[in-house]
Amino acid sequence: MLTLVIGNKNLSSWSLRPWLVLKHFGIEFEEVKLPLDTPAFHRDIVKYSPTRRVPVLVDGAITIWDSLAIAEYLNEKVQGRAWPADAAARALARAVSAEMHSGFAALRTHWPMKATGTASVQLPPEGEADVARVQQLWHEIRSQYAQRGPWLFGEYSIADAMYAPVALRFRHYGAKFSSEVAAAYQQQLVHDAHMQAWIADSQLEVDNNWGTPA
Amino acid sequence: MLTLVIGNKNLSSWSLRPWLVLKHFGIEFEEVKLPLDTPAFHRDIVKYSPTRRVPVLVDGAITIWDSLAIAEYLNEKVQGRAWPADAAARALARAVSAEMHSGFAALRTHWPMKATGTASVQLPPEGEADVARVQQLWHEIRSQYAQRGPWLFGEYSIADAMYAPVALRFRHYGAKFSSEVAAAYQQQLVHDAHMQAWIADSQLEVDNNWGTPA
Repeated sequence: MLTLVIGNKNLSSWSLRPWLVLKHFGIEFEEVKLPLDTPAFHRDIVKYSPTRRVPVLVDGAITIWDSLAIAEYLNEKVQGRAWPADAAARALARAVSAEMHSGFAALRTHWPMKATGTASVQLPPEGEADVARVQQLWHEIRSQYAQRGPWLFGEYSIADAMYAPVALRFRHYGAKFSSEVAAAYQQQLVHDAHMQAWIADSQLEVDNNWGTPA
Repeated sequence: MLTLVIGNKNLSSWSLRPWLVLKHFGIEFEEVKLPLDTPAFHRDIVKYSPTRRVPVLVDGAITIWDSLAIAEYLNEKVQGRAWPADAAARALARAVSAEMHSGFAALRTHWPMKATGTASVQLPPEGEADVARVQQLWHEIRSQYAQRGPWLFGEYSIADAMYAPVALRFRHYGAKFSSEVAAAYQQQLVHDAHMQAWIADSQLEVDNNWGTPA
């Protein structure tokens, strides 16, 4: 049995990504949730992760930190089905996923993920540029792969999980959309049943003050 | 024929990574080198890359930006030989490669890669922590895989390419080593024949003022 260690569902964008991959590909796992930035987190995370960060996946003697490395590991578990089947789409999916993995710093800093509620926060120009780049990516790829299905490359892939937290950011901060195609894809990500379950758990955290430092 | 578009060899750490993967796995490619931060760069990069950054790999109609996505693409080209063959080593190799891909910000900011020369630059505490983390990783993994060969996981893998620029940073800035095992691995990366060819080209750039904005 796999164990995925995550942070608060309301806050931890990196945790959401591998969680969605596990759910979408029907891989059974045990979820361990630690409250970020609390003494309990620092006490417990060392049992799981050498980097002391979430997410971390534990599979017997194998421990994998980092969301993208976890996603590639899970892809192997499902015989490569977690990336698009055709080589050109798979290359593009890996490029946009890696871009998300190391980029969009201004967007991530100024619009931290919240799975619940709404807020109004003005972005600096570099944050606006990040929003525009995400929407341009979504627009171009969805326009190209629309015939294959509703996800970024048609069928669900790791790329959808990588961009899922951005859909929640756009929702929370009320991002304007420059493209209807991009807006529709954001709705696809938000209304996904697994995402809705994650959001419901996030709301419970907030309602119960779970994980709030005393 | 593949085309790899790179920046100055003396400066572009991200360019070095896929270049080494191509060389180590004997994949033929054409190299296109653009001088970073010059008008010529901005004029020419748009022909190759949607993110306007290097490196970018072009394979016919397929364009892949981001070093890690390029590495995964090349891994498929060589039937998976670019990652360790055993699943536990492969998972760990992907985790440390992803950690390099998105992390070590202080080290990368304060000790930018230079393939030539030496300098003395004091790191802030978070930079020192990054250096310690890299050396700890190298020490632990090399200690575990020493019997399999001289590279991080024994045989050469993408993980070696991901950490190669760090070996050049440690050389340029004269990093102190807390572990002989880690120090020996840094020497292994620097004295690699392909790395030596890259360093020689870097020296030619410097000697000829190639790519220096007028």
